[in-house]
Amino acid sequence: MVLESAEILVKPGMEEAFEEGVRQAVPLFRRAQGCSGMRLQRGVENPRAYRLLVEWATLEDHTVHFRDSEDFQEWRRLVGHCFDGAPNVSHLSGVLDGF
Amino acid sequence: MVLESAEILVKPGMEEAFEEGVRQAVPLFRRAQGCSGMRLQRGVENPRAYRLLVEWATLEDHTVHFRDSEDFQEWRRLVGHCFDGAPNVSHLSGVLDGF
Repeated sequence: MVLESAEILVKPGMEEAFEEGVRQAVPLFRRAQGCSGMRLQRGVENPRAYRLLVEWATLEDHTVHFRDSEDFQEWRRLVGHCFDGAPNVSHLSGVLDGF
Repeated sequence: MVLESAEILVKPGMEEAFEEGVRQAVPLFRRAQGCSGMRLQRGVENPRAYRLLVEWATLEDHTVHFRDSEDFQEWRRLVGHCFDGAPNVSHLSGVLDGF
């Protein structure tokens, strides 16, 4: 399992539209190959700084299969106009589950 | 609930020492006021870039009660020598659990 972490800064005043777009995009991720979960978090210090977390079976499920899909275009159509700059995307693997 | 997210860059060659230090620090977080979970993730693109995630009941449980505690000093004693620069700490709240 690999965790996609996308840091997304949203334009001022577009927070509600962005959250609604992510909500509408849930089915896109639910049917994406290798995707086993997604959730959205929001910054306390900067409420325009969101973090989207998506669980993928493999890195390629995200970087190849999803990004090359029509659903990726739909994802961007739903939320892309809310982005304040390009998202900062990285991938993480679990090392330790303390408790 | 508020999620502490600490982006920690570790000095080259100190990855194992850092992970072992985090492992040893689990009891410090387990007994910290308001702390309900902690886990460690590691970057795929940059394996020296770790992310420590700690769940707190309130922001102050982290920023006041934990940081002012002796256990915070112990935490830094266990892992601080592995840090390559200061950690980048932010706090997040949950917005949406897609699935």
